[in-house]
Amino acid sequence: MNSESPIDRLAKGLNRLPGVGPKSARRIALDMLTWDTEEVRRLADLMVDVKTNVKSCTVCGNLGLTDPCSICDDSRRDRTLLMVVDTVANLLAVERTAHFRGVYHVLGGRLSPLEGVSPEDLNLASLPDRIAGGEVQEVILANEPTVEGDATAQYLSQLLAGAPVEVTQIARGLPVGSDLALADQVTLSRALEGRRQL
Amino acid sequence: MNSESPIDRLAKGLNRLPGVGPKSARRIALDMLTWDTEEVRRLADLMVDVKTNVKSCTVCGNLGLTDPCSICDDSRRDRTLLMVVDTVANLLAVERTAHFRGVYHVLGGRLSPLEGVSPEDLNLASLPDRIAGGEVQEVILANEPTVEGDATAQYLSQLLAGAPVEVTQIARGLPVGSDLALADQVTLSRALEGRRQL
Repeated sequence: MNSESPIDRLAKGLNRLPGVGPKSARRIALDMLTWDTEEVRRLADLMVDVKTNVKSCTVCGNLGLTDPCSICDDSRRDRTLLMVVDTVANLLAVERTAHFRGVYHVLGGRLSPLEGVSPEDLNLASLPDRIAGGEVQEVILANEPTVEGDATAQYLSQLLAGAPVEVTQIARGLPVGSDLALADQVTLSRALEGRRQL
Repeated sequence: MNSESPIDRLAKGLNRLPGVGPKSARRIALDMLTWDTEEVRRLADLMVDVKTNVKSCTVCGNLGLTDPCSICDDSRRDRTLLMVVDTVANLLAVERTAHFRGVYHVLGGRLSPLEGVSPEDLNLASLPDRIAGGEVQEVILANEPTVEGDATAQYLSQLLAGAPVEVTQIARGLPVGSDLALADQVTLSRALEGRRQL
């Protein structure tokens, strides 16, 4: 018999979630006891539902209920614009802006010699084929603005050097609403380099 | 048909957890997709398990698999010592110290005129009866060291004024490992008041 209380066991389970420490986990477990049973069951079902029903899109690497995903399958999306992102989380962030009507290619990571991530570990093999299809006119690199993201963008721009497409990168600059005096030097330098005529 | 993706729906569900904002919720939902299906199912089962199996102890207000709870039911606990705590979370915090072998009384909240919490809203009715039982020799007030917690302790000390028990309160003072120079004035004053001979 397990003498550990179910609250403790649940807290330990919740502690596995990213960003949830032991204290938050206990707080969540105790809070859940105040919910309706139906609400708890609904959340539990959603978790299992996501895990069993969501698949990876064989075209772009996005996650969804269908393969191809709802974005690749949407005839209203502009197939001449292909945005390369590192992760599905980043794809979803771009989607929330509602400012991009093209399609995506999700790498599933960033190149990182330190962490042993090489080009073969990323969803790169199908990218040249997608471009060779002829529909794509512009490849927009939207890799994370970090050393690894920049290295990945660098690799991609070399990979696509010979292809008959325009390769662009989303702008680095000052975040909207931020304090210029507090901006780090690199961001400020990139903002200067990327200045545009008004 | 619901066009919202299961990831978004799960993220919305997770957003209900205390301390989990919309961004953390999305991060957790995406992270879960990398888990084994069995792991997700286990956590989902734990959630439903806690909600359906855990009950409130009619003696002390603690939560557990049995009623009376495992603490009230444990013959090794010292029934002459009764600690009053605001919440089950606080009871669990005291239990983790392994420094208290008495029993508890969980109020289920704190008096707060602002939030409309009056004595009738707390688990107070059975407290005089428990003390009238004659076993209890000391009631230790371990309410939260806040305005509301102090008001609750004040109320309790009046409520128990005539009872044949000693009423004590756990010490306020400097947290161990903290910086005296950074302590707030109230804490430092209480630490001074509570000084002990070495």
